[in-house]
Amino acid sequence: VIIVKRNVALLGGTGTIGQRFVKILEDHPFFDLTLIVGSRKKAGKEYGRAVHWLLGSEVPGYVKNLKIEEFKASLSEEKDIDLIFSALLADVAEKYEGILRTQGFAVFSNSGAYRMNNDVPILVPEVNPEHIKLADFQRERYGGYITTNPNCSTYGLAMILKPLEKYGIKRVFVSTYQAISGAGYPGVSGVDINGNLIPCIGNEEDKIRRETKKILGEYRKGKIRAWEIDILASCVRVPVRDGHLESVIMEMEENTEIREIKETLRSFKPLADLPSAPSRPIIIREEDDRPQPILDAYTREKDRAGGMSVVAGRLNISDRYLRLFLLVHNTIRGGAGNAILNAEYALKKDYV
Amino acid sequence: VIIVKRNVALLGGTGTIGQRFVKILEDHPFFDLTLIVGSRKKAGKEYGRAVHWLLGSEVPGYVKNLKIEEFKASLSEEKDIDLIFSALLADVAEKYEGILRTQGFAVFSNSGAYRMNNDVPILVPEVNPEHIKLADFQRERYGGYITTNPNCSTYGLAMILKPLEKYGIKRVFVSTYQAISGAGYPGVSGVDINGNLIPCIGNEEDKIRRETKKILGEYRKGKIRAWEIDILASCVRVPVRDGHLESVIMEMEENTEIREIKETLRSFKPLADLPSAPSRPIIIREEDDRPQPILDAYTREKDRAGGMSVVAGRLNISDRYLRLFLLVHNTIRGGAGNAILNAEYALKKDYV
Amino acid sequence: VIIVKRNVALLGGTGTIGQRFVKILEDHPFFDLTLIVGSRKKAGKEYGRAVHWLLGSEVPGYVKNLKIEEFKASLSEEKDIDLIFSALLADVAEKYEGILRTQGFAVFSNSGAYRMNNDVPILVPEVNPEHIKLADFQRERYGGYITTNPNCSTYGLAMILKPLEKYGIKRVFVSTYQAISGAGYPGVSGVDINGNLIPCIGNEEDKIRRETKKILGEYRKGKIRAWEIDILASCVRVPVRDGHLESVIMEMEENTEIREIKETLRSFKPLADLPSAPSRPIIIREEDDRPQPILDAYTREKDRAGGMSVVAGRLNISDRYLRLFLLVHNTIRGGAGNAILNAEYALKKDYV
Amino acid sequence: VIIVKRNVALLGGTGTIGQRFVKILEDHPFFDLTLIVGSRKKAGKEYGRAVHWLLGSEVPGYVKNLKIEEFKASLSEEKDIDLIFSALLADVAEKYEGILRTQGFAVFSNSGAYRMNNDVPILVPEVNPEHIKLADFQRERYGGYITTNPNCSTYGLAMILKPLEKYGIKRVFVSTYQAISGAGYPGVSGVDINGNLIPCIGNEEDKIRRETKKILGEYRKGKIRAWEIDILASCVRVPVRDGHLESVIMEMEENTEIREIKETLRSFKPLADLPSAPSRPIIIREEDDRPQPILDAYTREKDRAGGMSVVAGRLNISDRYLRLFLLVHNTIRGGAGNAILNAEYALKKDYV
Repeated sequence: VIIVKRNVALLGGTGTIGQRFVKILEDHPFFDLTLIVGSRKKAGKEYGRAVHWLLGSEVPGYVKNLKIEEFKASLSEEKDIDLIFSALLADVAEKYEGILRTQGFAVFSNSGAYRMNNDVPILVPEVNPEHIKLADFQRERYGGYITTNPNCSTYGLAMILKPLEKYGIKRVFVSTYQAISGAGYPGVSGVDINGNLIPCIGNEEDKIRRETKKILGEYRKGKIRAWEIDILASCVRVPVRDGHLESVIMEMEENTEIREIKETLRSFKPLADLPSAPSRPIIIREEDDRPQPILDAYTREKDRAGGMSVVAGRLNISDRYLRLFLLVHNTIRGGAGNAILNAEYALKKDYV
Repeated sequence: VIIVKRNVALLGGTGTIGQRFVKILEDHPFFDLTLIVGSRKKAGKEYGRAVHWLLGSEVPGYVKNLKIEEFKASLSEEKDIDLIFSALLADVAEKYEGILRTQGFAVFSNSGAYRMNNDVPILVPEVNPEHIKLADFQRERYGGYITTNPNCSTYGLAMILKPLEKYGIKRVFVSTYQAISGAGYPGVSGVDINGNLIPCIGNEEDKIRRETKKILGEYRKGKIRAWEIDILASCVRVPVRDGHLESVIMEMEENTEIREIKETLRSFKPLADLPSAPSRPIIIREEDDRPQPILDAYTREKDRAGGMSVVAGRLNISDRYLRLFLLVHNTIRGGAGNAILNAEYALKKDYV
Repeated sequence: VIIVKRNVALLGGTGTIGQRFVKILEDHPFFDLTLIVGSRKKAGKEYGRAVHWLLGSEVPGYVKNLKIEEFKASLSEEKDIDLIFSALLADVAEKYEGILRTQGFAVFSNSGAYRMNNDVPILVPEVNPEHIKLADFQRERYGGYITTNPNCSTYGLAMILKPLEKYGIKRVFVSTYQAISGAGYPGVSGVDINGNLIPCIGNEEDKIRRETKKILGEYRKGKIRAWEIDILASCVRVPVRDGHLESVIMEMEENTEIREIKETLRSFKPLADLPSAPSRPIIIREEDDRPQPILDAYTREKDRAGGMSVVAGRLNISDRYLRLFLLVHNTIRGGAGNAILNAEYALKKDYV
Repeated sequence: VIIVKRNVALLGGTGTIGQRFVKILEDHPFFDLTLIVGSRKKAGKEYGRAVHWLLGSEVPGYVKNLKIEEFKASLSEEKDIDLIFSALLADVAEKYEGILRTQGFAVFSNSGAYRMNNDVPILVPEVNPEHIKLADFQRERYGGYITTNPNCSTYGLAMILKPLEKYGIKRVFVSTYQAISGAGYPGVSGVDINGNLIPCIGNEEDKIRRETKKILGEYRKGKIRAWEIDILASCVRVPVRDGHLESVIMEMEENTEIREIKETLRSFKPLADLPSAPSRPIIIREEDDRPQPILDAYTREKDRAGGMSVVAGRLNISDRYLRLFLLVHNTIRGGAGNAILNAEYALKKDYV
């Protein structure tokens, strides 16, 4: 198969998520990152100089000298761009992603701006691939379309709940242990978080609830009916660099053998072969002290699927309450990685 | 009032809890620490040399040159000891606390050895003062008696649940964020915990469940009937030095105004005046990012009651689910401080 | 003796150093903090609401409801202010401290704005008390005067070098391990510093060199002749909340018994009795693993002199190279505490 | 070229260095790890069960089920072993490495047991390749030979000093910032190191001095004459997982352009092509805040040379004092990686 690589633009490439886009897109078999759009302050500078690089020793060579450009309505057309990745903050994202959609672009966004819009999917290809059909309705209305990522702490929860749905979930409680990088850069002050815990993360608790209900919702004729099961989240920032851990309690309709539950999670079917799709979307660890962020956040995988799995451990069920811990890499699967996987999936399904 | 100070012995004075005993007992108005008993390895050494001191710059002067003595059956009598504090590890505690009880001593222990024994109270004076009556039954049988502390993460939960009981609690879920000092010394390896999370703390989850049910149980004629409400705990070690944070979810019989709940917790009545009794056993914080270990674990108070309160925050109720975060200083209230308060209470009630 | 308390104003009270001023000035025997001046953005708000409080559970009651006022040229006069403390950042400090000096005020500043001005002393009362005489020359010229603090990492070095000067120091090398709170708030990003080291702190290395040479300089007729000995500093930010550690190497004229050196440091004479003056300006620790920030940064002392000492340890000399580690609490002695001690000293010497 | 892979044994494979050996030896082009020797307590267990694995999610598949064997005098012969890697602790190493040497084996050790023996080289192939000739003298006497690694904090220093020697170094001062993993496992207690600094690392300061002088010494007729220049080290443990940072000050004969010095370091010639030899043994960073452990400890390289370089930054010279910061990955280049490179080098030079 001959793949014609698509030219992609990245909006907001210098933050913690933007950097992950840059790193994962290096040598991507489908996409060529040829345009990075940034704020007026950064426009004109070479990427390698404009960024406070956080992902290992060096800015990847392929973007080091790429000049950041300021957003212009005509920009992406001039540059022969095929699709757009966005790592913009929500307030800016609303404007620019909106304009680009009107211009006919497919925008794969990590931002929260359009997440709760009725016709915009929060897409997690393993969980709700059919939600991509909302793109058809957007296209009719705007010319292009937007897909969004869930919040970084939502993704892991949705992934786990999907295969367990069949056992009858009545209610979900989650307490999070969220890494510092999830707050962006500079994000949380070192004075606040060093050796400390902060039980407050914006309106994350509400996001987890609403986004999970949308992701797990049923698609029908251009509409998504939210999942009916309620979710309560309590969120805490912890002094860990990468990797969100979550303590999850599910009230179930009935008791099920924990072995069967593990088997169901383990065998949750991967997508057909895509470069960023992990071969095992859910990894179950049997040790009694796992998952741990330092050991498990970055799951090794073929291709660029490293850090794209959810790792779950310490599963047990008693008296109809199923409990487990899950871990997700918040800037890979919970960020840039999921948007790239969305684009790969859209390409495969002829949405690009 | 003239108080005749009692001579007290401390078993196991060099660990993280033992050091807290030493610190809180300095200049105590009721107690004179005159004997520290340690392992054979430490016996004969001066306390100041035998201890790896963790609580600020200097070992308190009053014990610096005190020679640690090895346990001998006759030891505490020789030294004219009135009562015993124990910071022993559970395995050693069983033997020595048992011997001392047989010799007629009142033993105020932080150890887990006797916690679940039917005739031994897990005493939290604000919560279950009447459980001290179990001492009468022990005395009949053994001559002396033992009271124990709850596990460091149990105390805060019990304190919060007690005043809320009247609203009808159906079920309790708790996810913990536990400080390193709770594992003793050397305890957790720095390699494991630095910038990491470990979702595994011995059999803490089971302890929280069983101990809370005992503490909140009803005393009747020498017996305690365990609290009927079930508790599910998920425990995580976090890279914080002192202070256990807990995310608590309570399924309630019905919705109650959160203002009323806060008021009930705030006005939870203190004990009559004791040196280690906090004037406000439960402190409610209204900020949206508290409690935090660095700011709130050590609550300032008169006398030696610093660090003896539970701090709760982020209370809210929705659809009959009451949620909050609570914080407790794990080596003070969750350790030495509670045992000392127990002894103060026992003294006041003529149990010493 | 009846002390008439002086009314003091604080410029910039909400940062990490400003908060220390507020905390140390609570119940101060000489000073009443009656005015807090802040930026336009904070002016009009109550202190308790405007501040992101970092020093334990609660904003001190005495300032909680004090309204922050905006700087007006006439402000401090209206309020019957006797002297000024400043925790302003250097850029703002230059303007406002200058105005107040012209109005005849004594300004005790932590800011760097005037540090290197010829007629402004960097005052460390134990080290260079005679430098206060520069105030006379300022008064002549401006009406009032300014004294400044050294940079937080300079103070400890100057304190140690002073008593050792007599042994003949030829050159000084220092490598620092500086706490996060030294960068102010929000200061260093949690993403950067968590589990990491940053070998870069503004132009701190140059400050240490120049300020130390000025502090140890000789006062003569309104001028200070800089210390001739050279100092080379290499500075690193470390993931520690409070307390700057420094590895110091001194090339000496000759070898001296380490016992004598320790004795000289230990007996470095304290100031006459002032509330913030530590009874032991230099504490020598004999353990082979001290000083440590968590154990030694906050030195316990009478009155408000806690955290005002330098702690040194691991002293040894070989082949004319004297080496040691020193530790200083960067926001107390290396910040607000020193400015307050300066004011106490000035008051005693009739400079206020 | 057809390479016949050699069978290698690893002594002490479950510690922090042992695990690195296991990881780097996976798919090694020259070596097949076929035997892991452990303590009596671990013997008989599968490696995957006996190890507390610290290097990412999973124990490498190739050793997971390998049974750890107890040391027997005949063991390595039975197993058809060609050479030995040792990650033993010094006390045990002395005995077992000695026996194996007598049996004719080449032992590539990370342990300190034989480091200071006259006929045993501390081998860093880029720095002192000719020291391998000591092996000839050992062989004559014992049948086999031992090479050792420097201490983890020594390696980086030796690497930097070697190419700078020609400029005339008079004296070297170094203050270290050493990662937790350098202390082994469990090593440093989390209670001690969390948010803290410990200015004490065994007799590391002496080791740095003596080992560096030996490594840089001149080989002549089976003897090494120690480097004459003196080195003073002050060592501190810091709350960082991996990567030792060092602040280095060198008194030089004369001033040299810093550009020339950087060029000299940058062009320090690599070894001829070996799998673990970094293409750039010394990497110079020009940013003003580097090197940093999280960003720079693991240097990316071809093959298995990742983490095998020294990274230096912030170089400057003034008044004949050359200063810089260097960083080395303490368990890779400063541990297993160097021993493996030694074996590769020995193989190439027909010493195996």
